[in-house]
Amino acid sequence: MNSTTGLLGEIADVGRDAKRGGYSRHAFDAPEHDLRTWFVERAQRLGLDVETDRNGNLWAWWGAPGPDAVVTGSHLDSVPGGGAFDGPLGVTSALAAVEALQAKGFRPAKPFAVVVFAEEEGGRFGVPCLGSRLMTGTIDADRARALRDPDGVTFWEAAAKSGLDVDRIGAEPERLGLIGRFLELHVEQGRGLIDLGSAVAIGSTVIAHGRWRFSFSGQGNHAGATLIADRVDPMLPAAETVVAVRRLATTRADARATVGRLVPTPGGTNVIASTVDLWLDARVPGPVTPELVEDISQAARTAAEAEGCSLTVTRESYSDDVVFDEKLRRDLGEWLGEVPELPTGAGHDAAILAGFVPAGMLYVRNPTGISHSPEEFAEAADVEAGARALAEVLERLAA
Amino acid sequence: MNSTTGLLGEIADVGRDAKRGGYSRHAFDAPEHDLRTWFVERAQRLGLDVETDRNGNLWAWWGAPGPDAVVTGSHLDSVPGGGAFDGPLGVTSALAAVEALQAKGFRPAKPFAVVVFAEEEGGRFGVPCLGSRLMTGTIDADRARALRDPDGVTFWEAAAKSGLDVDRIGAEPERLGLIGRFLELHVEQGRGLIDLGSAVAIGSTVIAHGRWRFSFSGQGNHAGATLIADRVDPMLPAAETVVAVRRLATTRADARATVGRLVPTPGGTNVIASTVDLWLDARVPGPVTPELVEDISQAARTAAEAEGCSLTVTRESYSDDVVFDEKLRRDLGEWLGEVPELPTGAGHDAAILAGFVPAGMLYVRNPTGISHSPEEFAEAADVEAGARALAEVLERLAA
Repeated sequence: MNSTTGLLGEIADVGRDAKRGGYSRHAFDAPEHDLRTWFVERAQRLGLDVETDRNGNLWAWWGAPGPDAVVTGSHLDSVPGGGAFDGPLGVTSALAAVEALQAKGFRPAKPFAVVVFAEEEGGRFGVPCLGSRLMTGTIDADRARALRDPDGVTFWEAAAKSGLDVDRIGAEPERLGLIGRFLELHVEQGRGLIDLGSAVAIGSTVIAHGRWRFSFSGQGNHAGATLIADRVDPMLPAAETVVAVRRLATTRADARATVGRLVPTPGGTNVIASTVDLWLDARVPGPVTPELVEDISQAARTAAEAEGCSLTVTRESYSDDVVFDEKLRRDLGEWLGEVPELPTGAGHDAAILAGFVPAGMLYVRNPTGISHSPEEFAEAADVEAGARALAEVLERLAA
Repeated sequence: MNSTTGLLGEIADVGRDAKRGGYSRHAFDAPEHDLRTWFVERAQRLGLDVETDRNGNLWAWWGAPGPDAVVTGSHLDSVPGGGAFDGPLGVTSALAAVEALQAKGFRPAKPFAVVVFAEEEGGRFGVPCLGSRLMTGTIDADRARALRDPDGVTFWEAAAKSGLDVDRIGAEPERLGLIGRFLELHVEQGRGLIDLGSAVAIGSTVIAHGRWRFSFSGQGNHAGATLIADRVDPMLPAAETVVAVRRLATTRADARATVGRLVPTPGGTNVIASTVDLWLDARVPGPVTPELVEDISQAARTAAEAEGCSLTVTRESYSDDVVFDEKLRRDLGEWLGEVPELPTGAGHDAAILAGFVPAGMLYVRNPTGISHSPEEFAEAADVEAGARALAEVLERLAA
């Protein structure tokens, strides 16, 4: 029998990022393809029937597909230089749970599937949970097809190259309608479980979050021959915006706002940039997120005008607050006993699905709270406890 | 006969950068290789003998090499997304000047060479004027060999791949000793010539300049799950440093200080960066440059400490103020008549050589002053006037 840690060990060498550390596994790239191949092979060994849906999500069915299905899973892609657990832990725990249930002779009374959602991190095409957003129709197919990666390749082109029928990308209500309950297990990405004395928690809420692109344009020029007074340097308002992001986030309770990606063009040391793009990741509980972003945009506009630069702000994604299904949370709490509930600031496919079907989450303790980093970690004992908890509730759900 | 604009037209399609606009032609890359091949072929058609020196600089000799040589030339590499003139104008003007002198039956009494210096912009390996610095011993060969490009490839590896004998990279005093006078023609990179009513100027001084790398380290983490209070985000002190660069440069007369390159790692939208590297290009007349950089470093250290980040500051290159050869300037002024003298904030191979041999420069008017940008420009009439002026003074120097 394969433990979850054993399954994670099988993919431990796939997509290592020598430059950033950790893993870079992005939609339709070679490591992500290898992980998909590995998943198909692993699921087939358990007797599951694997299909790729119209949006590149993988579905491994235990028995025949059908309505009121119990569906579990997560994703295999990573942020650039991400950790080993974010995504794969939910997929490997689901495979281990199926194997454990099979070993004890359980057969699901309901349709049952393990799913791998595509481009959960938005690490390549910018929109997180792209696979689940497409399936649910949360993002328009035409907009998604036109999304570009940093090299200018469109989602349409990359999807076609990987073998998807790009004309069929988009909402798939029939498939969505099959899901009776969706449950995602995920490594906890903050410090919420550290002091609670439990290896596992039940997800309660996901705070509103989104991504905005700020594009500052100025006048590219020579760094030595251009006097300060003659400059229209977009790096200045971009930097002032980064400072404003922190200042304005600090004034709002529980707000998180981040600039982790900033790209000057052309990016030469002896060149005043002509444009600077930065991406704001903003998340505040309640409807405060758009207000915070408006305040940040205003600060950015003021800084851009002072330097003579132009600015465009584009919302690339936005998700409102999510409360996971009350009944499912109550059931999970009853079945798992003394397990705490935990809110999160991290987005997940389960939170996208929660707008359409009863969805819930289980979190596995992260002893440092560090995530989206090579240092992300979970103890082996906690990983196995998470998989056991998942098996236990799946057995009840599918009975 | 080939005009300078005609020669520039021959290479107008080499190394175009579809993403940034303009040209990206970097040391040992395919476009730069094509430009070198083009130069060799062009020089050979004029009957010149071309050799590559130990550091990758090309020398096209008109007649036998020898001491007290008259040497002219510039470079063919560009900044990322640079203009059509910065570098190639000096090389094409030199070729056009040789052809014009040959057409009128002139034969140089002194040894005469057209030179193409390697990696003048430092666009790939970070140190500007690398070819001339190596030849003159201004940079240690071991340090140069270990320089890395953004992908981690060393100068040593790239040079070896291009066919250089890497064990022989380094100071070449015998070759340097052959140069009697060095003259570089270059497009003007500021607004200095616009109001002077002249297509051409004689270079007077180059202000002190250098490059410093600021590396901020923090704790990579999840952008949504990490509370503001728990963050150690190197993007914050990096942004505060950009703001300080402008503030501190403004307090010093005639200072130029720029951050045109800034790289967060891993660079994900939903990821708090673990490190941010930024490059400071600083230039102030007189010995004020190191003082300015020390003030900026102090501001950066304060900002880093406030966020709990560490900081290392590394000087990647530095050149003191340069005054071009008095006698050569006087001669150029006498031969060219009503031509103004112009100081510059831009570095050049001629300024490196000026520490060792009599060196001078001619600038060609730039109607907007924009350089290191796709918008860099010079009128065709000014380009031809520059080449004529170059031919005229080379004829006198080599007579």
